[in-house]
Amino acid sequence: MNRLPMLENIFAQPASHRTLLDYHAGQGSTSLQTCGERLRNASGRLIYSGMGASIFAVIPAVSRLLENGYPAQIAESSELLHYGSASLTKEDVGILISRSGESVEVVRLAEKMREAGMTVIGVTNVPGSPLEQLADHTLTIGSQADQLIAVQTYTGTVLTLLLLAEEAISGSSLEFSQAASAMLPQLSAHIDACFEASESWRHWLEPSGVLYLLGRGPALASVQEGALLMHETAKASAVGMSSGQFRHGPVEWVSAESRVLVFGAPEATQAIDRSLANDLYRMGAQVRWIGPSQGGSDSGEHAPALIPWPDVAPAFAPVFDVVPMQVASYRLALWRGIVPGDFRYASEITSAESGFPLFQSRHTSKE
Amino acid sequence: MNRLPMLENIFAQPASHRTLLDYHAGQGSTSLQTCGERLRNASGRLIYSGMGASIFAVIPAVSRLLENGYPAQIAESSELLHYGSASLTKEDVGILISRSGESVEVVRLAEKMREAGMTVIGVTNVPGSPLEQLADHTLTIGSQADQLIAVQTYTGTVLTLLLLAEEAISGSSLEFSQAASAMLPQLSAHIDACFEASESWRHWLEPSGVLYLLGRGPALASVQEGALLMHETAKASAVGMSSGQFRHGPVEWVSAESRVLVFGAPEATQAIDRSLANDLYRMGAQVRWIGPSQGGSDSGEHAPALIPWPDVAPAFAPVFDVVPMQVASYRLALWRGIVPGDFRYASEITSAESGFPLFQSRHTSKE
Repeated sequence: MNRLPMLENIFAQPASHRTLLDYHAGQGSTSLQTCGERLRNASGRLIYSGMGASIFAVIPAVSRLLENGYPAQIAESSELLHYGSASLTKEDVGILISRSGESVEVVRLAEKMREAGMTVIGVTNVPGSPLEQLADHTLTIGSQADQLIAVQTYTGTVLTLLLLAEEAISGSSLEFSQAASAMLPQLSAHIDACFEASESWRHWLEPSGVLYLLGRGPALASVQEGALLMHETAKASAVGMSSGQFRHGPVEWVSAESRVLVFGAPEATQAIDRSLANDLYRMGAQVRWIGPSQGGSDSGEHAPALIPWPDVAPAFAPVFDVVPMQVASYRLALWRGIVPGDFRYASEITSAESGFPLFQSRHTSKE
Repeated sequence: MNRLPMLENIFAQPASHRTLLDYHAGQGSTSLQTCGERLRNASGRLIYSGMGASIFAVIPAVSRLLENGYPAQIAESSELLHYGSASLTKEDVGILISRSGESVEVVRLAEKMREAGMTVIGVTNVPGSPLEQLADHTLTIGSQADQLIAVQTYTGTVLTLLLLAEEAISGSSLEFSQAASAMLPQLSAHIDACFEASESWRHWLEPSGVLYLLGRGPALASVQEGALLMHETAKASAVGMSSGQFRHGPVEWVSAESRVLVFGAPEATQAIDRSLANDLYRMGAQVRWIGPSQGGSDSGEHAPALIPWPDVAPAFAPVFDVVPMQVASYRLALWRGIVPGDFRYASEITSAESGFPLFQSRHTSKE
């Protein structure tokens, strides 16, 4: 079977991550340590920023830093650039993520952060990029490149930022890195399992209504990235939202047509998210659960699992729970007759804050 | 004509806000000044938190504080409670918003903030509430109460928090309060205009696909609250997203069936948001614009306005640009045969982190 590039990228993740982990434990270790020290010694806020998949990839690391007492926060670069740059101070550290190192809002924000006297750490997969020129320190992701849609670069960024968080918190990412290496065979098996199961998801995935993705804490990474993948890959609408916010109002939308995916791997809130999934199931919604199995309750009213959950440490869950969405968005695109990974309007690199190059070139050529 | 309670609440906003402004300029002025001083003198972060409509109501004030150099940030209470409370320090000030003062996550977060030694300002419309018991200072919203769905309490919270921001930034909210009073007749006229125009929105609003709401900065308040109103009132799905994030991928979803509302009142980004709206229009999407008119360009390819925009100061735009969504969600509910303002699952007060009292009472009574 000829695999399309996006599918190649999905299956390539374990090998790509092995290269990435080796890089950060070897050649890249000095850079990782230096950046970790900057985070540990910051007297102000740790401001993580980016656009698109890059900003969702920061969520697990920021969650880990917050749980360890660091004043980390996430801000969309486009928002911080236009409405927040007056609040930046020299005590703050900026961690700016751009796969290409060229996203216009990120590059312009790097300039604003430098003007404010901040330390800027640029996280990019492209050495020598404009972001690297502006940053005080560069952390190279070290992932194999994707064909258009962020797949292995997305999970690679998640891992790189978790390594950085470990450097800041415990002074060494070695133990985390070894544990991450050890889980890669499980990741391969999980990708295989998702791909094999995916044909059976068709009746659930294909209806035209919007899919809701819910979760909390580090799981919000896959919630938001999953919704983005549905848009980018399958040209389908999807809503990503925290489970807490969903309970405060949007739950009113639920009916028998509602399709909801609850991401429940994080331990601190697993019980209340299970309860949410099971409540939605009892309301008649088409709910699927992603996370550890629900154990032996006697009620028999459990939201079914989308995919059996591998026995993996919670720290690595963000690399596992996004895989079903990578595969689902790929499959849904094919079922809809769309080439997964092709862009219609946007492009891999967003180099201006207005206009859509791919659309404009077609629009102009038609005239 | 007998108006349903939600419509009464929509039309009651100007009168409710007059009461509110009088309250804060009179009996409530000492409390407003005290809270303003706490914000001005904070040595750490200003952490605004809440759930549902309450958290969206903070966006204009936080935007204003950020533009004036304050390290303000927004965190969902459910997220901060479970994943961020270790990062709270005694230098930080918490501004916790709950209309009822009883939302479980907000009340529990107030306890965590007190444990961390933080100053806690409780913002509530119900004197004597649990939040008030826990807070160091209480800022009473002073709005007339809504029937279930937050309408006048939502815009009332927006105004109260803008008054508080003015107290912090300039030491007095008097001038802002007088300007706010002076714009109330325009708000009445705007509500009338939205209600009269709304019958003509039917062919645009009624299709079953998801509605996208886009904006930036302070307009994100109405973007997010508008999406919430669609869920709560009309039981319809809607996506609220920043225009910047939408450009970085989700734009791929756009087709001739796509319905998009661009909120473009904020001045700093009006030009790029107009450009986005007009690009989407040229792509064939069903786009509507909310904001100042687009002036005399000669291209003739303009996204049409949903409603003529009143000549109102940008500071008050968040009180105006949410009105079309209040009216639209009310109308859409009626067209769908739903009583606008009735809850099916959630309830006005969310007093536990699992379970849905209205659903469970029905579910149990059927057995």
